[in-house]
Parts: sequence; C-alpha cells; structure tokens
Amino acid sequence: MLDITRDRPVKVAVKVAVPVRDHPKFNFVGKLLGPKGNSMKRLQEETMCKMAVLGRGSMRDRKKEEEMRASGDSRYAHLFEDLHVEISTFAAPAEAHARIAYALAEVRRFLVPRN
Amino acid sequence: MLDITRDRPVKVAVKVAVPVRDHPKFNFVGKLLGPKGNSMKRLQEETMCKMAVLGRGSMRDRKKEEEMRASGDSRYAHLFEDLHVEISTFAAPAEAHARIAYALAEVRRFLVPRN
Repeated sequence: MLDITRDRPVKVAVKVAVPVRDHPKFNFVGKLLGPKGNSMKRLQEETMCKMAVLGRGSMRDRKKEEEMRASGDSRYAHLFEDLHVEISTFAAPAEAHARIAYALAEVRRFLVPRN
Repeated sequence: MLDITRDRPVKVAVKVAVPVRDHPKFNFVGKLLGPKGNSMKRLQEETMCKMAVLGRGSMRDRKKEEEMRASGDSRYAHLFEDLHVEISTFAAPAEAHARIAYALAEVRRFLVPRN
C-alpha cells in the first residue's frame, strides 16, 4: 500500500525481455553495456534507475555462465531466465513510476537493432 | 517479463493508502468521488487510469458494508483492507508507468486535506 501523502519512497522494478529470438545474431549485451560499460552507466545516471543485464547469455564467458548456473547459488538463479534487463529505482511513488517510464523508453532504443 | 520492442500492453496497478488515521474526521471518500461521482470520473478520464475507492469505510452504508464483509464473497475481500484507492491502467509499458505517475500526483491532491 503506497503512502503518497508522506511520499514514502518505494522500490519499483521491471524486467524487460531482450528480443534474442527475433535477432539471434545481434550483440544486445555489447550494445547495452557499451565500451567499458559506459553506455549503461550513462543511461543509469540519466534515468536515475539501476539497470542490470541478467539471464541466459548475460555473461561474456559462456563456460563460466554454465558453471554459475550449475552452482545452485541463488545469486545466479537469474541465469535460468531468458536474457533481460532489470530496471529498478527507489523514490517517492509518482517519481518512481515516472523514472521507470523514461527508462523504458530509453532502453527500448537499445533493443531495436538498426539495419 | 515486459515486451517493449513490440510494446505489448500490460496492466500496471497500485494501491494508495487513504490517510484516515491522520485525519479521522475528513470525508475522503466524498471528496474523491465528488458530486454524483463526477470528480473521480473526470480524474479517470484525464489520467487514462481506472480508479476505485476500496477497503474499510469505502461504502456509504456502513451496515451494508459490514454485511458484505461478513458474506465471505471474494468480491468484497477488499473490505478487510484499510481504505485505499486502487489505480490501474492497461497500455504499452512506458505509457502505462507514465499514466500511473501522473495519476498518483493527481490523486495525492485529494488526500491532503486543506485547512
């Protein structure tokens, strides 16, 4: 139950599917992260949201990813899910949803490969 | 998992607490609904969100509310919760969160009684 009269901060989080089936050859992870992870870093600052690329295919080293998946460690449970971007923010309710709206519009541009 | 490349519509819903403990004498339900429910009707049109006043004290007839609560009917399960406004919308993800952000800001004005 949101307390908007006191504007008590809440966490809002969404998971966005990366369309790997539609574009099997496209390097979404590389595009999203950018050189040295700078694209995603800038995107997070600009949208005031935390972002993480998670799920199957999110790790550069596929062999290591397989090991992590097999480890049973709950921190790697996301590796059983499809590749996705997790976007989250912590703010007063209206502000939090506005940030998520903006972040979704910005992340979308990374998920539509140009020809 | 949101599909933002196809902009597949999703339902986003939030529950907003009505601060009855802070203002026990204030008629929040009357203020929210307005004459003939016109205030809430206009608010829903303007924000493109559905809204409903639910929970303990949401029905004008307290005796009937008590009966509904006792009925065990799942449609009245909300009457066991504190008084709240349920706000929901169905749209492409970014649009849906933007609508909720706007609706939260608008509903907030009804929940802060003027002196």
